[in-house]
Amino acid sequence: MDALEALKTRRSVRVFKSNPIPGKVIEDLIDCGRMAPTAINIQPWEFIAVTDAALRARIAGATDHGDFIKAAPLCIAVFCKDTKYYLEDGCNASVCILVAARAHGLGGCWVAGDKKPYAGKIGEMLGSPAGCKLISLLAIGYPAEQPLAAKRPLSEVLHWERF
Amino acid sequence: MDALEALKTRRSVRVFKSNPIPGKVIEDLIDCGRMAPTAINIQPWEFIAVTDAALRARIAGATDHGDFIKAAPLCIAVFCKDTKYYLEDGCNASVCILVAARAHGLGGCWVAGDKKPYAGKIGEMLGSPAGCKLISLLAIGYPAEQPLAAKRPLSEVLHWERF
Repeated sequence: MDALEALKTRRSVRVFKSNPIPGKVIEDLIDCGRMAPTAINIQPWEFIAVTDAALRARIAGATDHGDFIKAAPLCIAVFCKDTKYYLEDGCNASVCILVAARAHGLGGCWVAGDKKPYAGKIGEMLGSPAGCKLISLLAIGYPAEQPLAAKRPLSEVLHWERF
Repeated sequence: MDALEALKTRRSVRVFKSNPIPGKVIEDLIDCGRMAPTAINIQPWEFIAVTDAALRARIAGATDHGDFIKAAPLCIAVFCKDTKYYLEDGCNASVCILVAARAHGLGGCWVAGDKKPYAGKIGEMLGSPAGCKLISLLAIGYPAEQPLAAKRPLSEVLHWERF
């Protein structure tokens, strides 16, 4: 898929078909995540690909707004070491994974990790080392819905030279 | 350009040719930024496209590591209203712009905004409303270098099911 099309047509998808995602595709998603922009190239990220249904159900149950993780064939948990720009770096990798998912004909939705009270609990479930922070939980699968969330128009968000 | 290729081949570019970027291309970059993932679709972002050379020189001079903003034909300043997930949202939009730049044959580099002591000063230069936070300064232009920063291998950053 064309890069500009993937960027412009990606939307959050929360309803998925039950088909599993081939391992090679999962690897390719994370291959895109690891190439994201990162402050002074530190790359503080670690990616956990969770396909196990029981583990996904436990993760879903720990969140407040991530129940659909249970039914998604894949949940990628993005963690970062606690560096100065850990949140920027982890977000950057998460977005690259979601755009790559769109390019692979998949859909996904970001469930918040950082600042959430359940972050530590999910870190324990996944064996996260001390000092590693949960950035996002990315529920991914073949889409069974085609949402088209409205977006603020370009003319409203773009300012030339200054506000 | 293919989406997966754009994601995997994007690297930070800090040396640019002097060619200006057509206005329609600048609009398209920001069109991709405004479609980024954002918590509960709040879209707290505002994008300032700075092409004016004197203004770019002032911005560059205010930063600690952004001197190349002076020589880039375009600097996109990404701001967000101060919402709970302002940093996630602003980073997501910034990454989408950088990937779109790659797809347009451009290169770019992210200069930090959030947490930097100069954020307020640059906000004043650009007429930012109170409560709007600088997320990033994206220096963008036609690349005059082809950097290939080394990245941690997939086998090191990908973990199946748990750490």
